[in-house]
Amino acid sequence: MTRAELIHEIKSKKTFLCVGLDPDLTKIPKHLLDAEDPIFEFCKQIVDATASYCVSFKPNNAFFEAYGLKGMASMEKTIRYIKANHPRHFVISDAKRGDIGNTSTMYAKAVFEHLDADAITVAPYMGKDSVSPFLQFPGKWAIVLALTSNEGSADFQLMEAHGMELYKQVLEKVSAWGSEENLMFVVGATKAVMLTEIRAMVPNHFLLVPGVGAQGGSLAEVCQHGLTKDVGLLINSSRGIIYASNGSDFAEAAAAEASKIARDMNAYF
Amino acid sequence: MTRAELIHEIKSKKTFLCVGLDPDLTKIPKHLLDAEDPIFEFCKQIVDATASYCVSFKPNNAFFEAYGLKGMASMEKTIRYIKANHPRHFVISDAKRGDIGNTSTMYAKAVFEHLDADAITVAPYMGKDSVSPFLQFPGKWAIVLALTSNEGSADFQLMEAHGMELYKQVLEKVSAWGSEENLMFVVGATKAVMLTEIRAMVPNHFLLVPGVGAQGGSLAEVCQHGLTKDVGLLINSSRGIIYASNGSDFAEAAAAEASKIARDMNAYF
Repeated sequence: MTRAELIHEIKSKKTFLCVGLDPDLTKIPKHLLDAEDPIFEFCKQIVDATASYCVSFKPNNAFFEAYGLKGMASMEKTIRYIKANHPRHFVISDAKRGDIGNTSTMYAKAVFEHLDADAITVAPYMGKDSVSPFLQFPGKWAIVLALTSNEGSADFQLMEAHGMELYKQVLEKVSAWGSEENLMFVVGATKAVMLTEIRAMVPNHFLLVPGVGAQGGSLAEVCQHGLTKDVGLLINSSRGIIYASNGSDFAEAAAAEASKIARDMNAYF
Repeated sequence: MTRAELIHEIKSKKTFLCVGLDPDLTKIPKHLLDAEDPIFEFCKQIVDATASYCVSFKPNNAFFEAYGLKGMASMEKTIRYIKANHPRHFVISDAKRGDIGNTSTMYAKAVFEHLDADAITVAPYMGKDSVSPFLQFPGKWAIVLALTSNEGSADFQLMEAHGMELYKQVLEKVSAWGSEENLMFVVGATKAVMLTEIRAMVPNHFLLVPGVGAQGGSLAEVCQHGLTKDVGLLINSSRGIIYASNGSDFAEAAAAEASKIARDMNAYF
């Protein structure tokens, strides 16, 4: 999906919500455990219920890989289901990959060619040749970790080198390796005030913002500091939406939660 | 596998070689492509041919994931084959994972419980809560990226913060999160002279050293600067061994290459 297409979707639907899919067999409704593929069934129902309130879905690889081959099959099925039934949604494989060049190329093929996802999250630690392979696929995106929403982000990301924090060094260097057409950055919502400085460095890049909801970030603050004329934000919520209820009404509850966030987003158009 | 067990294996076999498994359908011998599972068949034959010259195998996830579910199945089969037939070999899942706590926990379960690998490579960018979940499994290891062997390692890893390069900050901080019993570090062989400074910081930790062979690192230099009384090194070679020949003699050629490195290692006991 191109940048123009993504912006078109966002502006016509008046939402920039991304629904994160973190399926956990210990948390999904009990009645689904009897299904042939409980993880897929859960994701499918969440996807269908929330699709009209969001522009993006973000399956989190770990939650599928934890169930081995069966879980990987559920992930493939989920991504293929989204592409087939909600083809205008932007699919992010939240895999946090990154390795030496020939290895990153293999990951890129897995995600972009084999799975046909639109984007993958990438860890920047190994530098340019670990990120660049993800930038070679037209219409596909690398979403590079800059400032994450977890407590441990302070350990290295906030470390100052030559008077500039590591996450800013990442923004500066990585943005030169690609363009606004194939690169986004992860910026955690729990640090919304830092978005002003981040926007000064990457005024037009899309930012994927996790941490709204369960992790404590505020939508209003993120919008205040991060919105651009092209919106420029994809705001993710996972647990707050998908586990809004663990009863038989889980899909309706997820829809209600997504709809509430989408309504709040509406105000910014 | 505990540290004592690993050291015992190394000392009794007089080798600290790790054979990296990067199966690539475009590079493996043509006659294997007719097998039911060419990737597994290739790995199995490499493993059997080289097992007596090494103490560790390192399947590189990307090279399996690139073939989708089929590739993932080949990876599971390969790891289970090693555990069943070469149970004293240390199996490293080269996955370079790392995410927020609950997600890292899912990855740890996937690798340690579902696959029963001994170790996983981990990217440090997201900090303590992204690494710690991998340190909660007795006898299992996190191998954290410090200084990698690729060109891009200079982009961030060599950046100085408060007078100390990022990779040293990683060594210092991360080594406090675990112990010599559950933590190793990746240190690329192409920077062998830096091993002296690294050894001053982590005198006893095992180091996983990629980059000997195809990537240009020298065994003698790595040993000169990195060996400890407990050896403390696992030196990986992937392409140089597994693609020593692409003919029907590929397994014998791999064995010859591994045996050559093992013989060189012999001199250090």
